[in-house]
Amino acid sequence: MTDMAELPPEPSSWLSDRELRQVRSELPILYVNVVPVRTHATGQISEVGLLLRADEGVMSRALVAGRVLFHETIREALIRNLEKDLGLAALPRIPLSPTPFAIAEYFPTQGFGTFFDARQHAVALSYVVAIDGECEPSQNALDIVWLSPEEAATDDVAAEMAGGQHVLLRHALAHCGVLPA
Amino acid sequence: MTDMAELPPEPSSWLSDRELRQVRSELPILYVNVVPVRTHATGQISEVGLLLRADEGVMSRALVAGRVLFHETIREALIRNLEKDLGLAALPRIPLSPTPFAIAEYFPTQGFGTFFDARQHAVALSYVVAIDGECEPSQNALDIVWLSPEEAATDDVAAEMAGGQHVLLRHALAHCGVLPA
Amino acid sequence: MTDMAELPPEPSSWLSDRELRQVRSELPILYVNVVPVRTHATGQISEVGLLLRADEGVMSRALVAGRVLFHETIREALIRNLEKDLGLAALPRIPLSPTPFAIAEYFPTQGFGTFFDARQHAVALSYVVAIDGECEPSQNALDIVWLSPEEAATDDVAAEMAGGQHVLLRHALAHCGVLPA
Amino acid sequence: MTDMAELPPEPSSWLSDRELRQVRSELPILYVNVVPVRTHATGQISEVGLLLRADEGVMSRALVAGRVLFHETIREALIRNLEKDLGLAALPRIPLSPTPFAIAEYFPTQGFGTFFDARQHAVALSYVVAIDGECEPSQNALDIVWLSPEEAATDDVAAEMAGGQHVLLRHALAHCGVLPA
Repeated sequence: MTDMAELPPEPSSWLSDRELRQVRSELPILYVNVVPVRTHATGQISEVGLLLRADEGVMSRALVAGRVLFHETIREALIRNLEKDLGLAALPRIPLSPTPFAIAEYFPTQGFGTFFDARQHAVALSYVVAIDGECEPSQNALDIVWLSPEEAATDDVAAEMAGGQHVLLRHALAHCGVLPA
Repeated sequence: MTDMAELPPEPSSWLSDRELRQVRSELPILYVNVVPVRTHATGQISEVGLLLRADEGVMSRALVAGRVLFHETIREALIRNLEKDLGLAALPRIPLSPTPFAIAEYFPTQGFGTFFDARQHAVALSYVVAIDGECEPSQNALDIVWLSPEEAATDDVAAEMAGGQHVLLRHALAHCGVLPA
Repeated sequence: MTDMAELPPEPSSWLSDRELRQVRSELPILYVNVVPVRTHATGQISEVGLLLRADEGVMSRALVAGRVLFHETIREALIRNLEKDLGLAALPRIPLSPTPFAIAEYFPTQGFGTFFDARQHAVALSYVVAIDGECEPSQNALDIVWLSPEEAATDDVAAEMAGGQHVLLRHALAHCGVLPA
Repeated sequence: MTDMAELPPEPSSWLSDRELRQVRSELPILYVNVVPVRTHATGQISEVGLLLRADEGVMSRALVAGRVLFHETIREALIRNLEKDLGLAALPRIPLSPTPFAIAEYFPTQGFGTFFDARQHAVALSYVVAIDGECEPSQNALDIVWLSPEEAATDDVAAEMAGGQHVLLRHALAHCGVLPA
């Protein structure tokens, strides 16, 4: 439940589940994290999209997240994971630059750093991505909820996010100039 | 001719020409510089747009550029200057973050730094902006030419750009992962 | 009192006070803002330095701030303004890249944006700078107080900062990976 | 010889050589790449350090590079790999922010992208790091050579670098404002 919000097992993994479990104890695993947003015509964020999911009866909100696969570019990983979590009609505007606005380091040790993932040491290249189309929650996400930047930055929303992702969300808001005063 | 490529005098200046000339000798002037690009669906740059202009019979290629006006946000300045140089149908995707990929410092002293502008000390917040619509050269730009990243990075194109802007162009290509090897 | 915390009038202004007042109503004024920090050997921030100042009997905390002067590079402006606010023995490590982590747009209109400066429209290139030496408050700063990232991010500290600078401070903490969960 | 310049086998790997070879065919491997620099007091780069190494009789120049290990922070990985390649007295100033200036994606397929590494798909978080101390080449690096930014950007130096690293080097120079015109 406190894992990084990589909703479903990924469909096209290059590794079997057993192999992935093994390698997760030996190497940092490369991820992408995405804060999906809707924007005004000026490019300013109007809304932030958070996935709603239920794990063993506990509800939480999560960012789009998923692994980068072998021989996959970061652009391809962004597109694949956005399709996985937001559906095929989301029409994301993939960033012009592959440089992330932040690196989120998830450790499997509670309290070791800001971000926690019980399964693994994951390093997530993190992006804000504008979504122009329609989203539909896929697989085990219950819903996608769009919040104003003001709502998204509240302690209530933070309390509903797992693994420290509310810190990455607030960083994204600050980076885009909409962290509320 | 070696000025920064702020093509026409700006329509809605808050200052008279005489006042602007005066203040240009006393303060750094805040600018935006934009590298307009077309992209593949993956967000990767397919083409770079350069303005073609003629000054006193000399042809040069230039980036989109213009001042930030009093009480204007950077987003508004980007939109206004893109409309000024590319027309009203260009449909630029204004960046999500106001943080520029580079700061270009233009000095009125040849050889003082990388960037030169005979008229002024200008500090340009610099962005790469994806263009989805149709561009038409406005006012004293003769044309807008779209080049592949490979062409845009050549020494031939560099030789046709004024004020050091080819360095900013190459930086933009590197930032977006398409500086040719 | 709610002005950006550019503590004293700058010693070496190129403009008279009357001229500066005039130009401030006509053009955005270019500033640098700096979050001074002390670091562990790993580069991680251990403490954040805030200036304590009194304006007309009201105490506030502020970032290092000041104008970029005519024909001054951003590096020179950083060094000069750090010396002005932290003294000559501060030994700042000026950043390798002139690209700021954020742009803070201060408008003279309350509520127009995140940042407010009653005197002017100021656009501040914002940096985090490590301080290796000893600081002494200069001129009309009463003191420099060093806070842990946890303290610096509290609402109590935010309430003591003017013009929205606590938002820039929190952005700096997030950018450096020390925004508290 | 065309591998990324991770000079020696790493001393403290968590995986046996056989296991590492196996996992390299299944997952992208997380690396750091570092452009070591010397700076003026203004923070401006004065020199760039390149490692000189010989592989099977072929000389090449390389950036500092190495893996991020399991449960290692990026800061720790930077320190460990800088010590590995530059020695214990290099006194690197580890960056304040963990956000890299670039992501270099190395693929084991010639021509697939800008960066090539015959051994693996490696994704390198890339940083510019100021070096204050003395460097000594360690293990199988023959030497560390310091070049001016002008020299470092030449085609001659590019021709001596493997795997596309000259593109990352030029990006670093542009990012720090010293890419030659």
